[in-house]
Amino acid sequence: MKKVILIGAQGKMGQAALTGLGNHQVITASRSGKDCDYQIDITDENSIRAFFKKVGSFDAVVNTVGACEYEHFVDMSEQQWLSTIMSKMMGQINLVRIGQEYINDGGSFTLISGILNVKPIPLAIADAVTSSAIDTFAKCVALEMPRNIRVNVVNPTVLEEAWDVYGEMMPGFQPVPGKLVGKAFERSVDGFLNGEVIFVDA
Amino acid sequence: MKKVILIGAQGKMGQAALTGLGNHQVITASRSGKDCDYQIDITDENSIRAFFKKVGSFDAVVNTVGACEYEHFVDMSEQQWLSTIMSKMMGQINLVRIGQEYINDGGSFTLISGILNVKPIPLAIADAVTSSAIDTFAKCVALEMPRNIRVNVVNPTVLEEAWDVYGEMMPGFQPVPGKLVGKAFERSVDGFLNGEVIFVDA
Repeated sequence: MKKVILIGAQGKMGQAALTGLGNHQVITASRSGKDCDYQIDITDENSIRAFFKKVGSFDAVVNTVGACEYEHFVDMSEQQWLSTIMSKMMGQINLVRIGQEYINDGGSFTLISGILNVKPIPLAIADAVTSSAIDTFAKCVALEMPRNIRVNVVNPTVLEEAWDVYGEMMPGFQPVPGKLVGKAFERSVDGFLNGEVIFVDA
Repeated sequence: MKKVILIGAQGKMGQAALTGLGNHQVITASRSGKDCDYQIDITDENSIRAFFKKVGSFDAVVNTVGACEYEHFVDMSEQQWLSTIMSKMMGQINLVRIGQEYINDGGSFTLISGILNVKPIPLAIADAVTSSAIDTFAKCVALEMPRNIRVNVVNPTVLEEAWDVYGEMMPGFQPVPGKLVGKAFERSVDGFLNGEVIFVDA
C-alpha cells in the first residue's frame, strides 16, 4: 500500500483515477479543498510548496486537474492563453519540480494531458497545445529524475461520465468509461512505466 | 515575388532561412534591430502589433527566434520556465494571433521549433517542451486560419554553422548545413503545405 496524493479528487477525472487507486491510501486535494483532505492551487508555486510541506511523506502524486480556456483561436487573448499555460502546463511542471523534493525514493508522478492534441477540435487549441507540452515534458523529465522517481502522463479521450457536457463539441468521438482511464492511472502508479504517455482512446 | 518578413535575420537560423528566400523581397527584423529593417520583441504583444502596423502589407512571416533557458530540470526556476514560454511559445503564438490580422490573403507563417523535443538532451527540457507546444500549435491553428492563410513549423536539428557552440552538448547528433534548413523554409513559404511540422534531421 502506497500513500497516493490525488489532486482534483472531486472532479470527473479525479473520480476516474480513484477507481484505479483501490490498493492505496489516498490523500485527496483540490483547489477549493471542499470534501478533500487538503487544498492546493497548482497555478501558484507557493501553494504547491505549502501543500507538500503539510502532507509530509508520500509515494505518489496523481494530478487530474489543468484548467483550459476554450475559444476560437482568433478570439483568444494572450491572457486566456496564459491562464491555460499557468494551470495545465506550468502548474503540472511545478508539481513535479517542487514535489520531487518531497516525494519518497522510488515515488511516481502521474500527470494529465488530453487526446485533443492528436485529435483537434474547434475551441480547444490551448488545451491541445498545453497537452503536447505536458506529453513531451513527461518523456523528457523522466530522464532527469533523481532517486528512481518516475513520471508518466495519462492522455485520455473524453469520459462517458462527462459526455453530457462535452459530447456536443466532440462529434465523432467515442467516450470511454472512467474505470478504463482509472486503469491507466493504476498502471502508472503500480507499474514500472517511466516517461510514458499512456493514451486511453477508443 | 512575395514580401517576406524574416524575424531573427542576423542569427544563424535566420541566415539559414535566408538561403531559401532568394526569390522574394525580404524585410528583416530582430530584437535589437541591428543591421535589420525593423525592431521587434516577440515576447511583448504590443511590440508585435506596433511592428505589423509599421511594416504594412506583407505575404509571409518567417520566424527564426525563440529564446530558451538551458538548465537541469531540478535547478530550473519557474522564472526560467516562464521566460522560455514567453519567447519560444507565447511569442510565436502571438506572432500568428496578431499577424493574421495584417497578413495578405493566402499568406503564410513559418515558425521554428527544434529537434530536441524528439531527441532529448540534458539541460534542454524547456526548449523541448515549448518546441512540442509549437509543433502542435501549427498543426491545430492551420485548421482555424481565415483567408487561406497557412501556418507551418520548421523543426531542425543543429546547424553545421552552430556546431562549434552546441556540438559539445549534443553528442551523437549530425549537424546539417544551413542551406538544407533553408529549403524547409522555402517549401513552407513557396509551397502549399499547411499545418505541417517540417523536420530537417540527419
